[in-house]
Amino acid sequence: MIITFLTDFGLQDDFVGTCHGVIRRIAPGAEIIDITHGIEPHQVLQGAFVLANTLPYMPEGVHLAVVDPGVGTERRAIALRSGDGRLHVGPDNGLLPPAAERLGGIEAAWELTSAAHRLDPVSHTFHGRDVFAPAAAHLVAGVDPAELGPALKPDSLVRLLLPEPAFGEGWARAHVIVVDRFGNVQLNLTSTHLKRLGLEQGMRVELELPLERYYAVAARTFADARPGDILLYEDAYWNASVAINGGSAAETLSLRPGDHLRLRVVE
Amino acid sequence: MIITFLTDFGLQDDFVGTCHGVIRRIAPGAEIIDITHGIEPHQVLQGAFVLANTLPYMPEGVHLAVVDPGVGTERRAIALRSGDGRLHVGPDNGLLPPAAERLGGIEAAWELTSAAHRLDPVSHTFHGRDVFAPAAAHLVAGVDPAELGPALKPDSLVRLLLPEPAFGEGWARAHVIVVDRFGNVQLNLTSTHLKRLGLEQGMRVELELPLERYYAVAARTFADARPGDILLYEDAYWNASVAINGGSAAETLSLRPGDHLRLRVVE
Amino acid sequence: MIITFLTDFGLQDDFVGTCHGVIRRIAPGAEIIDITHGIEPHQVLQGAFVLANTLPYMPEGVHLAVVDPGVGTERRAIALRSGDGRLHVGPDNGLLPPAAERLGGIEAAWELTSAAHRLDPVSHTFHGRDVFAPAAAHLVAGVDPAELGPALKPDSLVRLLLPEPAFGEGWARAHVIVVDRFGNVQLNLTSTHLKRLGLEQGMRVELELPLERYYAVAARTFADARPGDILLYEDAYWNASVAINGGSAAETLSLRPGDHLRLRVVE
Repeated sequence: MIITFLTDFGLQDDFVGTCHGVIRRIAPGAEIIDITHGIEPHQVLQGAFVLANTLPYMPEGVHLAVVDPGVGTERRAIALRSGDGRLHVGPDNGLLPPAAERLGGIEAAWELTSAAHRLDPVSHTFHGRDVFAPAAAHLVAGVDPAELGPALKPDSLVRLLLPEPAFGEGWARAHVIVVDRFGNVQLNLTSTHLKRLGLEQGMRVELELPLERYYAVAARTFADARPGDILLYEDAYWNASVAINGGSAAETLSLRPGDHLRLRVVE
Repeated sequence: MIITFLTDFGLQDDFVGTCHGVIRRIAPGAEIIDITHGIEPHQVLQGAFVLANTLPYMPEGVHLAVVDPGVGTERRAIALRSGDGRLHVGPDNGLLPPAAERLGGIEAAWELTSAAHRLDPVSHTFHGRDVFAPAAAHLVAGVDPAELGPALKPDSLVRLLLPEPAFGEGWARAHVIVVDRFGNVQLNLTSTHLKRLGLEQGMRVELELPLERYYAVAARTFADARPGDILLYEDAYWNASVAINGGSAAETLSLRPGDHLRLRVVE
Repeated sequence: MIITFLTDFGLQDDFVGTCHGVIRRIAPGAEIIDITHGIEPHQVLQGAFVLANTLPYMPEGVHLAVVDPGVGTERRAIALRSGDGRLHVGPDNGLLPPAAERLGGIEAAWELTSAAHRLDPVSHTFHGRDVFAPAAAHLVAGVDPAELGPALKPDSLVRLLLPEPAFGEGWARAHVIVVDRFGNVQLNLTSTHLKRLGLEQGMRVELELPLERYYAVAARTFADARPGDILLYEDAYWNASVAINGGSAAETLSLRPGDHLRLRVVE
């Protein structure tokens, strides 16, 4: 009876609390785990990335995710089942597939059209409350997903174009995916990519930004670098990240999600 | 065994968590739904408005709300019962009545004076923890509200002066109630008010602010306007709101809660 | 089956939600009370202070706390039992002992070394997820703490040097511990310290900062001072705090955690 919940709603407003109320009215026994509501507003790519990183740590259940800049348009509302049997609910804008791919692929999908499983009326701007939360609540209460609407072909779902890194002789061009509260900057590079660069602990790496260049050291954890030093490390989701021991890499390097930088191994 | 909880405490400090602890010590089976703790500090009007908007989406239970600039003064602590049987707990400063009015009116009220149903000692500055959370917990655990203190006449309770819009030939003067995380600006205008202006989808509206004028288009949802366009739409609580497709209306128009603007139908 | 949870993780990222997921996978019946995740990044002293203030308000259970600038270094991961029988889990950096001292002292301690009670693999930068949350979950599920690793001598644990106030003829030198959302400034002075200064309600106090001096009035609660007046009051945890009625003392006086000020009784 677990629903996990990820959005870009923030916690300043009542959006998240109202969805909790809607879920609990439909499925009084549901227990909700809030993965995060701090996805940058409308950043579907970041939401998809965080969802794919975190669902493996979540108990099995219904996985509700809403980052939905197209609310009120013709974009579809969907539920899908991943290969491991979990159910996922959200907008058909690319948010759900990367997580489902990590959990055995998309086995089945449905469009959420059943009026009986929505609130009435449905607003034009808050489908989290009126469409997605009710669908997730009905699913966790045992409703068969086929009752929520017609089946969709998995390959008809919208997919994101995930930004791919580029590689050359001793360098890689990477993309900033997430900046966390500590100012750590997560890149679209995996440990496999770092190995491809021949990078080993203790090596120096030049970080080439549009206006500046910085030197970082490849390290295992923050405290392996001196205070104030920039480090490149494998983060807790096994992606390459840039940090400053005791400081904010995002602030010092002026990096935000969507920015690019080039990494060049120096020694 | 549901307690809903709305405050201006924020989530940076331990205020909310400490109240959760106090509730769970008194009523171990209580389940708490946090509506929001992001009400602007001391903005009783905003708290009352959000509470009235959201309680209809909440399961029935005890509804605890604390926005309390007068903590430690002679303002009373109260519980009340709305016509639908729900119990509400908070300060007697106007915060609770608008929601209760939407739920059948105020049927009965009590002053929270019972020393046996507070923490001991009671601090001068944190009645959320010492008075209101314990009262809500005792109520959800089955204590009769009359045990918490003497009955009050419902018409003796403090009421807010809700700001009313003004209307003229083709114009309305409105009041900003809430600005949300996306920069959407909620006005004290309902869909009935908009109809009174003769406003229909696709029409243009001049927004007259103290220093600037802007044009907005009446639209159904964000994506009905072009990126960067200002739109006037009926929001998810069926109030008129101002938004910018892909931007922050609050930032662009420099609007904050309490500000006024004049809307004039252009075509 | 209660776990309380305090960190400096913030709520913008998935750190807290991921730990909730990990706990619920190991101990499906665990109920988590989030005390706060708003401790300033890496401020172990602030975390220890807030934990000691709030645990007496929490139901008994397993008390998980993570403020861990030394993650990935040789600092130990520990569990300990306080004299009242509660279990505490966190890094061995001084975070846990002040709360345990208030709850009957440290009765026993263990180092968290058991591979069977961690996630596999353990990352270098997120022991909250990989080490501490699993340990807390196993404890709440009934695992004996001695199974988590070897016993440690309580007096071998790292202790914080708590900043002590200094006193002279009619003055005290104090240290800012916490600034809350309302801009109230909590000092390392107890009501006993204030009595030692001979301070009584209504008296004036000079606050001497590096660049400015201000006058405050000793008051019981915010509304006892005129709007805009600075007040010195005993806060909800019975420490001295500085506030401005209707404003932010932290902003007006430019005070942050770690700052010092001198209080001098004027009349």
